[in-house]
Amino acid sequence: MNRIKRIERIIAMTKILIDNPHYLFSFRYFCEKFQIAKSTLSEDVSAIKNSMDTFGIGKVETLAGAAGGVRFVPGSNDEEDQKFLVELAHKLSTPDRILPGGLLYMTDLLCDPQIVSRLGEIFMKKMYDLRPDCIMTVETRGIPLALLVARAFNVPLVMARHGSSVTEGSSVNINYVSGTTKTIQTMTMPKRSLHAGERVLIIDDLMKGGGTAHGMVKLVEELGAVVVGKAFLIEAAEPQDKIIADYTALLRLYKIDEANMKIDIKPN
Amino acid sequence: MNRIKRIERIIAMTKILIDNPHYLFSFRYFCEKFQIAKSTLSEDVSAIKNSMDTFGIGKVETLAGAAGGVRFVPGSNDEEDQKFLVELAHKLSTPDRILPGGLLYMTDLLCDPQIVSRLGEIFMKKMYDLRPDCIMTVETRGIPLALLVARAFNVPLVMARHGSSVTEGSSVNINYVSGTTKTIQTMTMPKRSLHAGERVLIIDDLMKGGGTAHGMVKLVEELGAVVVGKAFLIEAAEPQDKIIADYTALLRLYKIDEANMKIDIKPN
Repeated sequence: MNRIKRIERIIAMTKILIDNPHYLFSFRYFCEKFQIAKSTLSEDVSAIKNSMDTFGIGKVETLAGAAGGVRFVPGSNDEEDQKFLVELAHKLSTPDRILPGGLLYMTDLLCDPQIVSRLGEIFMKKMYDLRPDCIMTVETRGIPLALLVARAFNVPLVMARHGSSVTEGSSVNINYVSGTTKTIQTMTMPKRSLHAGERVLIIDDLMKGGGTAHGMVKLVEELGAVVVGKAFLIEAAEPQDKIIADYTALLRLYKIDEANMKIDIKPN
Repeated sequence: MNRIKRIERIIAMTKILIDNPHYLFSFRYFCEKFQIAKSTLSEDVSAIKNSMDTFGIGKVETLAGAAGGVRFVPGSNDEEDQKFLVELAHKLSTPDRILPGGLLYMTDLLCDPQIVSRLGEIFMKKMYDLRPDCIMTVETRGIPLALLVARAFNVPLVMARHGSSVTEGSSVNINYVSGTTKTIQTMTMPKRSLHAGERVLIIDDLMKGGGTAHGMVKLVEELGAVVVGKAFLIEAAEPQDKIIADYTALLRLYKIDEANMKIDIKPN
């Protein structure tokens, strides 16, 4: 009976840790919740840690001391991540994704919860050291991806809008040139969504010339916050000259050949 | 040693089930993955099931027979859900959320991954029997919520846009009257995002008169799909006459009193 109970307790602990990525639970929290001694908790945490290591399904970190505790850091192993990205590139290469004008249809994949969950964890693993306070994106297509990066980091998402929104109070606007439409556009962000000094990680689905990303950087700076990183699911090989530097991209789109219906996209 | 191994295996199984809500894993999948007999798997699954029941952190369902298997259905118990909604209503009631024009600022809460994750599971529990094939919303503010409802159901999200988008191919447009801005607006949806006969659950953050929701219903019908449900985080008490019927709302916004800086919002 006791043995069953131990298993049930560890399952519940696993679920709680997974549901709250990066959140540092004090040892006391679990000791009190499950009415166990600290030595017992240590054994339980070791079991979870070993399992995650063995199966490559995330990490459990323990911090000693008065301010210590235990936390879950999501992420598969690098090999699995690479396999996932190769498969994703393959899915993005089917000829029926070519839209008039040589554009790539990818909204369906960006709205698939399983795919964006997995991508969120991959981005988090790569950007872990940046320790962002929040994730930023601009509407619309990149929102699901950015939200699940935010979920993997367990930090809030902030969204810039095109034009201004009446439902978000006073805001800051900037103008930028979008590479896709080649027009001057306005991007706006509610003042209360970012605070001075906050560390912001910019996430978007596609980066061509970097105009939109550059707009986001300017918005963050206008609000007194700090861009600690810029990461994209896909970077286009063309144009070669980008307005922004120091970014990360998981996939690289080499060419969309409309005449021969071929898409060349590969993991970076 | 064997005992430790059993625990590690069960932890990994728990993680896999949680990461794939509603997905029916065949018994064979786990037997082969962990190299165990079916009787051993049954014991493992029982332990996970018991733990989830004991701690109210979700459900594990097993289906017998050749097409059978095991799956995880997320969701806390009703009492915890209710407590969460009371707290959320409380957070939404702080006077600094009142924007000029008597609007409610709630983007921050709708972009908090923990909050929308939890809401996603609550919506899923309430709408479980509708068995939607996909979740639909319209940009922008409701996207994070709708995505995590989609994640809880483990089905895709589809997004309608305002105006038309050049990056999504041929699309269907409809006009509708938005209650917030009192103007005729256009809503658009790429043709390839929905297929005829698909069961669609509409999700949005706020419903006032129902104009926007009605627009979404019309879009779904234009594409030959079927609306199986309409659910909102918040319904406004005013106007009392809604364009749509048969909907679910978790919270009810009774009044925003701009003069006295008071917001009256409660769980339904």
